[in-house]
Amino acid sequence: MSAAAHRRAVELAHACRLINHGPTVLVSALHDGRRNVMAAAWSMPVEFTPPRVAVVIDKSTYTRELVLASGCFALSIPCRAQADLVTTVGRTSGRDIAAPDDKFARHEIEAFDGPALGLPLVVGCVAWMECRLIPERHTEAAYDTFFAEVVSAQADVRVFAAGRWSFDAGNTPLHTLHHLGGGSYGVIGDVVQGSVLRP
Amino acid sequence: MSAAAHRRAVELAHACRLINHGPTVLVSALHDGRRNVMAAAWSMPVEFTPPRVAVVIDKSTYTRELVLASGCFALSIPCRAQADLVTTVGRTSGRDIAAPDDKFARHEIEAFDGPALGLPLVVGCVAWMECRLIPERHTEAAYDTFFAEVVSAQADVRVFAAGRWSFDAGNTPLHTLHHLGGGSYGVIGDVVQGSVLRP
Repeated sequence: MSAAAHRRAVELAHACRLINHGPTVLVSALHDGRRNVMAAAWSMPVEFTPPRVAVVIDKSTYTRELVLASGCFALSIPCRAQADLVTTVGRTSGRDIAAPDDKFARHEIEAFDGPALGLPLVVGCVAWMECRLIPERHTEAAYDTFFAEVVSAQADVRVFAAGRWSFDAGNTPLHTLHHLGGGSYGVIGDVVQGSVLRP
Repeated sequence: MSAAAHRRAVELAHACRLINHGPTVLVSALHDGRRNVMAAAWSMPVEFTPPRVAVVIDKSTYTRELVLASGCFALSIPCRAQADLVTTVGRTSGRDIAAPDDKFARHEIEAFDGPALGLPLVVGCVAWMECRLIPERHTEAAYDTFFAEVVSAQADVRVFAAGRWSFDAGNTPLHTLHHLGGGSYGVIGDVVQGSVLRP
């Protein structure tokens, strides 16, 4: 079965649910034929409708150059099976790789084109978003924080459907990663339901 | 054993590790004798040194009034055992409670005073930070996003020590919550270690 078989579009109204629970993400970008991908533990939604996110992209990164030049980036949400891939793209720089080679080719990371912007999305992840930068020079400079609007969203239907994550014992390799530091990731295990306590 | 027995100061250089993995947090604030606490799924570090964070605090919240008036807020990081408490403070407003009563009293939520700013920190959580607002009128208005510097950090030594989370089978009630939507939380289960793949 092809890698695409489980991918489904996610309604934009549900897009922010994809990172609501704080997973580590892969940030990818493409400009003028050059592409790159990095890991980012620091991202969050800031608005459900329109779907907007914030992500921290350090000044030292090659991805930041591509994002600023192109005005867009993509987020791919990796899963348990990809801990080595996430650590690898988090610890190496695409700037060190001579064209036409890049991080994808170097580390045999398969990508497919995003439906809205054609950005490289990482195969094997469990959700994907393409985002258009909302330029905010001050917060980019002061906090490395980039705001963006989500313009496409997709997820692996085996673990996200009808606007909801469904993490269970039957799909553990697809559970999301949450970076604890040093290449160590907490993985979502059980799901618990909270109730409103009456006074 | 008192609730304080397991609390230890965390070096400020390690403070951002407390929310690096994207847990849902409780945001509390205090101004002029009035205090409140709310749940926030949307927060992230933006800098390790000095330790700085960003958190989304909606315009409708009473907490936001107190944060803007006092110039500070606290984050308490709740655990599996507190899913009902988190859902409760996330779905009710302190504005609806007549003084001198408040959400803490109404829902029997125990608090202790933060060491730096005296902010109310929630007993039973597994980590705590006090933060001083860095005023950013534009991002507060446009994205409900508040930037702040962490001025004190503490954690429960049973699950965070020497700058690291240690989630394991022996401390599952203390594992952090990651909001999936609708009062449903993914809980950190296993921890996996990633390796850098050689090309």
